[in-house]
Amino acid sequence: MAQPSFTAIVEALPETVPFVGPEAIERQTGIATRARLGANESGFGPSPKVIATLRDATPEFWTYPDPENFELRSALAARLGIASDEIAIGEGIDGLMGQLVRLFIEPGDVVVTSLGAYPTFNYHVVGYGGDLRFVPYAGVHEDPEALAALARETGAKMVYLANPDNPMGSALPAADIARFIAAVPDTCVIVLDEAYLETAPEAPVPIDTARPNLIRLRTFSKAYGLAGLRCGYAIGNRRLVGAFNRIRNHFGVNKAVQVAALAALADEAYLHWAVDAIAAARTRIARIAEDNGLTALPSATNFVAVDCRRDGAYALAVLKALAAEGVFVRKPAAPGLDQHIRISAGPDAALDVLAAALPVALAHAQSAP
Amino acid sequence: MAQPSFTAIVEALPETVPFVGPEAIERQTGIATRARLGANESGFGPSPKVIATLRDATPEFWTYPDPENFELRSALAARLGIASDEIAIGEGIDGLMGQLVRLFIEPGDVVVTSLGAYPTFNYHVVGYGGDLRFVPYAGVHEDPEALAALARETGAKMVYLANPDNPMGSALPAADIARFIAAVPDTCVIVLDEAYLETAPEAPVPIDTARPNLIRLRTFSKAYGLAGLRCGYAIGNRRLVGAFNRIRNHFGVNKAVQVAALAALADEAYLHWAVDAIAAARTRIARIAEDNGLTALPSATNFVAVDCRRDGAYALAVLKALAAEGVFVRKPAAPGLDQHIRISAGPDAALDVLAAALPVALAHAQSAP
Repeated sequence: MAQPSFTAIVEALPETVPFVGPEAIERQTGIATRARLGANESGFGPSPKVIATLRDATPEFWTYPDPENFELRSALAARLGIASDEIAIGEGIDGLMGQLVRLFIEPGDVVVTSLGAYPTFNYHVVGYGGDLRFVPYAGVHEDPEALAALARETGAKMVYLANPDNPMGSALPAADIARFIAAVPDTCVIVLDEAYLETAPEAPVPIDTARPNLIRLRTFSKAYGLAGLRCGYAIGNRRLVGAFNRIRNHFGVNKAVQVAALAALADEAYLHWAVDAIAAARTRIARIAEDNGLTALPSATNFVAVDCRRDGAYALAVLKALAAEGVFVRKPAAPGLDQHIRISAGPDAALDVLAAALPVALAHAQSAP
Repeated sequence: MAQPSFTAIVEALPETVPFVGPEAIERQTGIATRARLGANESGFGPSPKVIATLRDATPEFWTYPDPENFELRSALAARLGIASDEIAIGEGIDGLMGQLVRLFIEPGDVVVTSLGAYPTFNYHVVGYGGDLRFVPYAGVHEDPEALAALARETGAKMVYLANPDNPMGSALPAADIARFIAAVPDTCVIVLDEAYLETAPEAPVPIDTARPNLIRLRTFSKAYGLAGLRCGYAIGNRRLVGAFNRIRNHFGVNKAVQVAALAALADEAYLHWAVDAIAAARTRIARIAEDNGLTALPSATNFVAVDCRRDGAYALAVLKALAAEGVFVRKPAAPGLDQHIRISAGPDAALDVLAAALPVALAHAQSAP
């Protein structure tokens, strides 16, 4: 039958979901999620002031959002001490990544990342026909020296590094990041994913918007507790950031997002409280893991990677046994990382469920064939 | 200085905003908008039940949205009597258009639309390197026969038609649309924009998801009063609709959108009330126009195209004079349509401002050099 043909790139792409949501798992298994600790959201939620502001704003949702995101960009610029045209707002970091790849990657262009790093970045690269090249982790850290070296060797158009890192929760010293940035050619776009910035122990490398090839991505989804609204922002020089205006869905960042992110940014006291609460939750997750004979990795993020101390198949069995108990966690799949499960920080009620479920899950996993 | 190079397509694109928002106009002119009647929003707002539901849901915005939009797709499917995998949800019709173009248009592919039709569609076509070809309006209607003919002649990959039409507010009979659909080759994607469906006088052509090349786009931005949240949906056969899953930003439709659209869909009584209120506002806009010696066109939408009965420059002067009075309206720019201004339906308070401002604006425009 005659039908329209997709582009050559699209024809080769699978229908996919980079992350299957816990809602889908519930629909498939019929098991209600009792502890939602898998998506690195913040169970501590957004600031009560954000909730109040959002509630008050709902009657205004009949107007289109400001396509320039003027107020939010201005507030972020003031906070960061840069110009507002050095900031772009997007539908989460995911949305910004898709736009970034579209701006720079032609079919066959090389893009360098770590094996086991953020899969949605890879999804977008493949979606525009990029040629992904992988550098293995050095233990539980991404390997910035090797990433920069591979970018140079391959003439890569783009290189990705997250600091702090997902899925391992590790952080590299700012000095290492500065060396990495200097070691990447100016013609190669550096995508520095700082989604977990707020929970990191060390201040990041200073912002330098003169650099022609550095885009830093940040989000309101983690410490700010607003994953449901999807608000990410990109920081970089005027040429890079302005280019989003050539291709973006200008009205894509909706009014709820604009209102909530502004309010979240204004409530610094809540952010500090949430960061402390996340740190306390990490400590408790580590204790729960260790009480059960597992090893918790140090974390600079809002989750803890827990080494199940056997192979990837075993860690997967633990994850599945936790799911059967209504505890939603995720795990890395890459070789060398796959013996870990990844548990998000959350309030005590959720961690109580985890504490009760983990020994049961381990017993199940150990008795599995 | 060495810097990363954009793709060839992006290099040629300007930084742009398809529609300058009234917020930007306020920032530029310092004149506060007293009547927001330019963006075809609904000043009647969403249902009070939607507002209440949204308010109740705000504490849950810490979790990522369901990337499958399962509940909303299911509800729409039930309403429309089709399968849920024949529906895709996107960040407004704008977002869906960008994805559709990306799925099908390679550089140089021909895309047919009407001269003066929705500019954001054109923005996306140009953004993927498509070759836009234009058919003039036939009076105040798009010309479906000519659109189909040009699509055939040029071997177009895609053809766009809005019914009801924006910016003229006209509607074509369903029989004409059915003939148009049949006249377009099966290899050419038909983008049937039904943003203004709810306010149309006649039922649309029946949904036929067996057709391999028809995508219908609908929205919660117009009669449902939720422009600020940006929720559009696409209806079509499984192959077309499923393809969005190859490229979309899966978490791009946020939780506020999902919650609000579901609640809006459930409140049919409010929709009927809003459609009636919009119809009454159209009647009043027409009366205001005619009281001032202008001609209001019949409207099947939530706005009225008003013929200023001189040339495009005069209509632009009227628009600017209205803006000086704090009345935000828009106007078509295409030859043959540009003597019109486009006034959105709104509540009486806004139309009172319009009624007072229009004679003043006309006097200014008439005395302009």
